[in-house]
Amino acid sequence: MDGTTGPAAAQDGDATAADGAAGCDDLRVDGARLWEHLMALARIGATPRGGVCRLALSDLDRDGRGLVVGWARECGLQVTVDRIGNIFMRRPGRDPDLPPVMTGSHIDTQPTGGRFDGNYGVLAGLEVVRTLDDHGIVTAAPIEVAVWTNEEGSRFVPVMMGSGVFAGAFTLEQAHAARDADGRTVGDELSRIGYLGDEVPGAHPVGSYFEAHIEQGPVLQDHGVTIGIVTGALGIRWYDCVVQGMEAHAGPTPMALRRDALQVAARLMQEVVACAHRHPPHGRGTVGSVQVHPNSRNVIPGRVRFSIDLRNASDALCDAMDADIRATAARIAAETGLPIEVTQVSSYPAQPFDAGCIDAVARAAVRLGHSRMPVVSGAGHDAIYLARVAPAGMIFIPCKDGISHNEIEDASPAHVTAGADVLLHAMLERAGVVARGQRRR
Amino acid sequence: MDGTTGPAAAQDGDATAADGAAGCDDLRVDGARLWEHLMALARIGATPRGGVCRLALSDLDRDGRGLVVGWARECGLQVTVDRIGNIFMRRPGRDPDLPPVMTGSHIDTQPTGGRFDGNYGVLAGLEVVRTLDDHGIVTAAPIEVAVWTNEEGSRFVPVMMGSGVFAGAFTLEQAHAARDADGRTVGDELSRIGYLGDEVPGAHPVGSYFEAHIEQGPVLQDHGVTIGIVTGALGIRWYDCVVQGMEAHAGPTPMALRRDALQVAARLMQEVVACAHRHPPHGRGTVGSVQVHPNSRNVIPGRVRFSIDLRNASDALCDAMDADIRATAARIAAETGLPIEVTQVSSYPAQPFDAGCIDAVARAAVRLGHSRMPVVSGAGHDAIYLARVAPAGMIFIPCKDGISHNEIEDASPAHVTAGADVLLHAMLERAGVVARGQRRR
Repeated sequence: MDGTTGPAAAQDGDATAADGAAGCDDLRVDGARLWEHLMALARIGATPRGGVCRLALSDLDRDGRGLVVGWARECGLQVTVDRIGNIFMRRPGRDPDLPPVMTGSHIDTQPTGGRFDGNYGVLAGLEVVRTLDDHGIVTAAPIEVAVWTNEEGSRFVPVMMGSGVFAGAFTLEQAHAARDADGRTVGDELSRIGYLGDEVPGAHPVGSYFEAHIEQGPVLQDHGVTIGIVTGALGIRWYDCVVQGMEAHAGPTPMALRRDALQVAARLMQEVVACAHRHPPHGRGTVGSVQVHPNSRNVIPGRVRFSIDLRNASDALCDAMDADIRATAARIAAETGLPIEVTQVSSYPAQPFDAGCIDAVARAAVRLGHSRMPVVSGAGHDAIYLARVAPAGMIFIPCKDGISHNEIEDASPAHVTAGADVLLHAMLERAGVVARGQRRR
Repeated sequence: MDGTTGPAAAQDGDATAADGAAGCDDLRVDGARLWEHLMALARIGATPRGGVCRLALSDLDRDGRGLVVGWARECGLQVTVDRIGNIFMRRPGRDPDLPPVMTGSHIDTQPTGGRFDGNYGVLAGLEVVRTLDDHGIVTAAPIEVAVWTNEEGSRFVPVMMGSGVFAGAFTLEQAHAARDADGRTVGDELSRIGYLGDEVPGAHPVGSYFEAHIEQGPVLQDHGVTIGIVTGALGIRWYDCVVQGMEAHAGPTPMALRRDALQVAARLMQEVVACAHRHPPHGRGTVGSVQVHPNSRNVIPGRVRFSIDLRNASDALCDAMDADIRATAARIAAETGLPIEVTQVSSYPAQPFDAGCIDAVARAAVRLGHSRMPVVSGAGHDAIYLARVAPAGMIFIPCKDGISHNEIEDASPAHVTAGADVLLHAMLERAGVVARGQRRR
């Protein structure tokens, strides 16, 4: 079970409701309304196989943004847009000087994406707002829902562009200059679809940030648990590895005289997985891509190039895995006499989430009686950049068979509702409830 | 040392000169003359990097054939051509009713081929004829030199086409219908270059057949031995293997919940080599080609397809390796829960050479005092098809670093000469010397 603390442990409940949301324990989102809005947004760019194709800054992205912003305006939210196209939809609090408690995600999708990835986080945020409105809740801090530009990176790289510029991971100029396969830039496309805003990215204050998201992995389903309390994001190291052997005929070359690059590569490929197991509980090791030269049936491979993806929960553990795989490669090279080159090609630091935000999510799950467990995020999310500039946390809900970035991506209405309820209560705790009025409908 | 009998053992000399070549122990080819002819033929289709590109039935093949046939006519040889373009160049014996003792090989090359592969066997044959002429030797049986059409199979498949049709491995009609990448057929190209002969392939009698060839492997060089006494050719089994896993994100999927097709494939790839080691001394196992799906850096491979090439010295041993690798694949599939499909895609039987021909080569090497060792051929040669219809044997000489099918393919003049001397004495033993005249020059 990959070393995550088991759901049974979490069931014991070490968190208790804080004072901030006192008197609101009975509040629940309207799950049916949230589902309807999810399905309405999924119609923009709907694919024949039940998924969504709504690439960042396309006409469909513009239409999706228009639908979401229209809903926000129906709720009376104040809408602002920054220069990378991030949208902020604000429900005022009692104290306008307090930084907002923010939630959000993205509405761009993969080319063969699903209905939930990103969209869920944005629409769960709007459902929180509607629920507060329904019950006449006044919060101390403002509540905001953000839509981050180009999280997927399918059309323009880097990924998580809007939140990355917001957090200063790269510059606005770099992002604006990014081009799609047809040569169109992010700057031009933002302008064309009407989302080149005025705000300076990052100038927008954030008191704390929560993001609800489908897990995009199989852990919650495997444990039969509803709520993943996300404690942080794994650090990532990417490498290219080249094993140099000697190309030779499969027939006339006896086994003892071979320098078979693929056989040596196969050993190291297995060590990538062994390295992950040597660094539990969160170590992950993947060889995803392989190129064999000359890749001919009766020729002993002379050169094999493959990718290595190592992940772990802290930069120190990533460093340890880095040292481990390099030493293993050197040992195999020495044992076989075949040179092995391991080159790091990119790296993303591990990002722990804020203890206060993690606790707020845990307390909300306890209060609502949902099964829950701590999990780490192995994938990238806007919340990971937000965590660089504000206290941040995430809420995961199960997705069917862990499948995402796929038209068959699916989540159950019950889980969608549960995650939004946890988001509501975590945000209320951080924002503080100062008054509760009549139920509007 | 791959289980071949060591050179020291062969040095002891268990073969003695037979009566057939009595009185000719002093005969030697003219190594310099042979080398000059090799270099002259290598100029037709010479590549800038020192190799040769003379594809079967091309204009350059026609030019090469013309040069060789011209040399044969200078020697007074009778030239006939069969309907697949095989050329037979005959030096009469005393008894025209005896089937000829034949030698030969091919002069077509790989696109980036070398100067020796094939060409050496043909020109060593012509040098044998010239040496017999030099010394006024009359043999009982005729001596013939053959040029087999399209051995390489680079332009038209199947490989070893001319000798294959000659031996009845496939039909003349199948061979004539084979098309190159531009759609031109073997039949049309034979006609175009003027080598669509009259003889019915296979009708030509063969008393015994010898072929001199560079080893195309590293064994002789590794042992520092001059002459390889080829005892036969390995049988070959080719398979496609598919491992079916579950494609998933490298980030959010913990190690314990993965169905990583590449990791399972890597185990089986190593078992292909282990299987070869379990079937010594001649077992060979190669994975030459790999396709990973979707072959993306951060996606756990969902499907891996790879080739398996198994070889051994007898069909029974090939059967045993077949059973071994299938059982191993089934065991790995059962242990991992990932389906593995192993499909045989082609098969070539093992081909032992004739004991009399093997002995004739061994006796010649002993008589000439060359270091020697028994070897098996791992690659395909025309002699392997000839062995189906006549007593056959081969003589290997070392090639530099075992490299062939490459412009840098190389062999030393001393080895080239030694191999031709062994060919001369082996053929004389089989043909029988009935008279020796004046040295002509």
